Amino acid sequence: MENKNITIGLFGFGCVGQGLYDVLNHSQGLKANIEKICVKDRNKKRKIADEFFTFDKEEILQRNGLNVIVELIDNADEAFAIVKQAMNNGVSVVTANKKMLAENFSELYHLQVKNNVALIYEGSAGGSIPIIRNLEEYYDNELLSSIKGILNGTCNYILTRMELENKDYLDVLKDAQLNGFAESDPWLDVAAFDTKFKALLLTVHAFGIVLNPDDIFNTGIQNISYDDILYAKQRGLRIKMLAVSHKVGDKFRVYAIPHFVDRNSELYNVSYEYNAVEVEGAYSCKQTFVGKGAGSHPTGSAVLSDISALTYDYKYGYKKLKKLINGSGNIEPGKAQIEYDFPIKLYIRFQDGEQLNDLEIISVEEEFKSAGTNYIIANVNFNSLFNIYNKRENKLFICAI
Amino acid sequence: MENKNITIGLFGFGCVGQGLYDVLNHSQGLKANIEKICVKDRNKKRKIADEFFTFDKEEILQRNGLNVIVELIDNADEAFAIVKQAMNNGVSVVTANKKMLAENFSELYHLQVKNNVALIYEGSAGGSIPIIRNLEEYYDNELLSSIKGILNGTCNYILTRMELENKDYLDVLKDAQLNGFAESDPWLDVAAFDTKFKALLLTVHAFGIVLNPDDIFNTGIQNISYDDILYAKQRGLRIKMLAVSHKVGDKFRVYAIPHFVDRNSELYNVSYEYNAVEVEGAYSCKQTFVGKGAGSHPTGSAVLSDISALTYDYKYGYKKLKKLINGSGNIEPGKAQIEYDFPIKLYIRFQDGEQLNDLEIISVEEEFKSAGTNYIIANVNFNSLFNIYNKRENKLFICAI
Repeated sequence: MENKNITIGLFGFGCVGQGLYDVLNHSQGLKANIEKICVKDRNKKRKIADEFFTFDKEEILQRNGLNVIVELIDNADEAFAIVKQAMNNGVSVVTANKKMLAENFSELYHLQVKNNVALIYEGSAGGSIPIIRNLEEYYDNELLSSIKGILNGTCNYILTRMELENKDYLDVLKDAQLNGFAESDPWLDVAAFDTKFKALLLTVHAFGIVLNPDDIFNTGIQNISYDDILYAKQRGLRIKMLAVSHKVGDKFRVYAIPHFVDRNSELYNVSYEYNAVEVEGAYSCKQTFVGKGAGSHPTGSAVLSDISALTYDYKYGYKKLKKLINGSGNIEPGKAQIEYDFPIKLYIRFQDGEQLNDLEIISVEEEFKSAGTNYIIANVNFNSLFNIYNKRENKLFICAI
Repeated sequence: MENKNITIGLFGFGCVGQGLYDVLNHSQGLKANIEKICVKDRNKKRKIADEFFTFDKEEILQRNGLNVIVELIDNADEAFAIVKQAMNNGVSVVTANKKMLAENFSELYHLQVKNNVALIYEGSAGGSIPIIRNLEEYYDNELLSSIKGILNGTCNYILTRMELENKDYLDVLKDAQLNGFAESDPWLDVAAFDTKFKALLLTVHAFGIVLNPDDIFNTGIQNISYDDILYAKQRGLRIKMLAVSHKVGDKFRVYAIPHFVDRNSELYNVSYEYNAVEVEGAYSCKQTFVGKGAGSHPTGSAVLSDISALTYDYKYGYKKLKKLINGSGNIEPGKAQIEYDFPIKLYIRFQDGEQLNDLEIISVEEEFKSAGTNYIIANVNFNSLFNIYNKRENKLFICAI
């Protein structure tokens, strides 16, 4: 394979964009350079010369001679418009925008096929961990049974600090916001939407199943209290925000829910902004990948590896997806493989018993009441969790056992 | 890329060969089949029909229509002869034979270039962990600073059982031999030659440096006693047999020595036959990969992923090696980058003080003597470790701190 030169049009020069710029400048041997960067804020002081920047996206999208668009902006809708236009122009795209990818996956898949261009996005899940590429290239013929992991650096950072510093959620969250480990509106991260978007992407590459974000239940750490941390500590456990996508019988279960993990789990020691992914296959058995899941340089290095892959015209093969849709082009059959009607064992902390009414509780194994806090350990019909889905007024903290 | 059909000539039908056969039979969508298998023992009962087998290697090597040779025999010299002949015939080769690869790396590299064929060997290091491919494809432009790991399943199995069952080395070794976790002559494994061969291969793919096996010091667990396990336990540590290849200043240090690791290390919980590799880069930071390092199916699945890669004409790019040799074809410069003259802090258990005379001890930090056992913690000139290299009569147990 002959490597080609890559000329990049970059959208966004925030945390990851600047990280990419640094990484690219210090990379040896990669024939790639950033020609133009489109940014929004006209007044921000930036560390490279003004001539690199434009405020007009068309100046990049209509420019001749660019062969890759790297999209690293925050807004998922604007990102989608940019990515779509670039692909329709026959230009390959690198992105790390998991929300945009998850919300528009079907259309983005079809755009790749229709325009015969690459859309690659290693930086969108697991930060610097090369998980998507490994699912595509290394586990492409492996019968995988499960993929799960810690995929959100913000949640893991908060959970780690709550446990190690014996602090409550809001104190740590505030501090995390000051230190750049949480957004000013942290909802997408702490309520596990971000984790869920990543679960969606990993499910595509591990099993060939394409879902919509609303097909996947998520609940996060938004209602956690120090009581929950203490409960775990006393039992030698840790709470980790997990994405889970696994096969049970001939159906798949996919969700994003906090879990108790014990000392023997590879996930137990994954702390602060580190992420981890566990892949289980029939023959390769259990593989765990651990690495920094967030931050300017780790994510920048994942984006760089995508750019490097484009120098030899790399594209995702989507082998498992193509096999499942069997030439039809219709990616709907995926959802039929998902199971919703099963019991899941949960630890649920609540203040008021009425809060539990939305859930279909099959059996209660333990019940604890005190002046300060109440919890039950119960088997709940998974389907009924959608009754509390994405409701900010819901105050339950839920953790799978 | 158009996938092509792969017709395989297989050498060896032992543990990994049979694993490959199973994995290939259950793989979905891979267009590959084993046409003929060359084995040695004419009398062994085998689980597939006799017509698949031959006892004459030329029947495979001179056969038309095979496009891949998979070499999975024990004997490194015979393996090298087979691999060499296949490559000179223009046939690509998949192997998992780390000893053969390490002992003949320069020649094998030149054979790939000269014949323009692929030689790929994911199964040779880390079992099912996709480490070599990731070094080649994902960290190809990353400035790596360190790669280290637990790479020998036999050592890790023995160390884990000694600690968890409070048993001495020879008892566990005997049991491991009965259970198929150790060879009848365990020297290559327990004295860390196997770990060293893998360190050599990872050093090629991480840093582009080619060494000879004798350039790399190795000492293993062949002299470990339960006293050493107890020493570690009392301090909350575990002993792990590590391969280390890292940059210090502008030189590299490469060796295979047991290490104490603490509870916070990702390597601490890697038990039994599991392997782990830690990769550190300037931008991607620390990544850890954990998976089964030995066994029929895990290694078979690594070999399968190599075969799958050959369906789209994959070859290792050896980018870092090519950059270092700068078109000269002479891979010698690698060794000049290795440092030998540095102090290394070691725990050394000995019975007789005279045993220490071979080592150049710079300073002793601790000294413990008793009726049962003696140890020192000392800074030793690394170079002097070669005085005890590969001497079966050496009875020191050495562990880096």
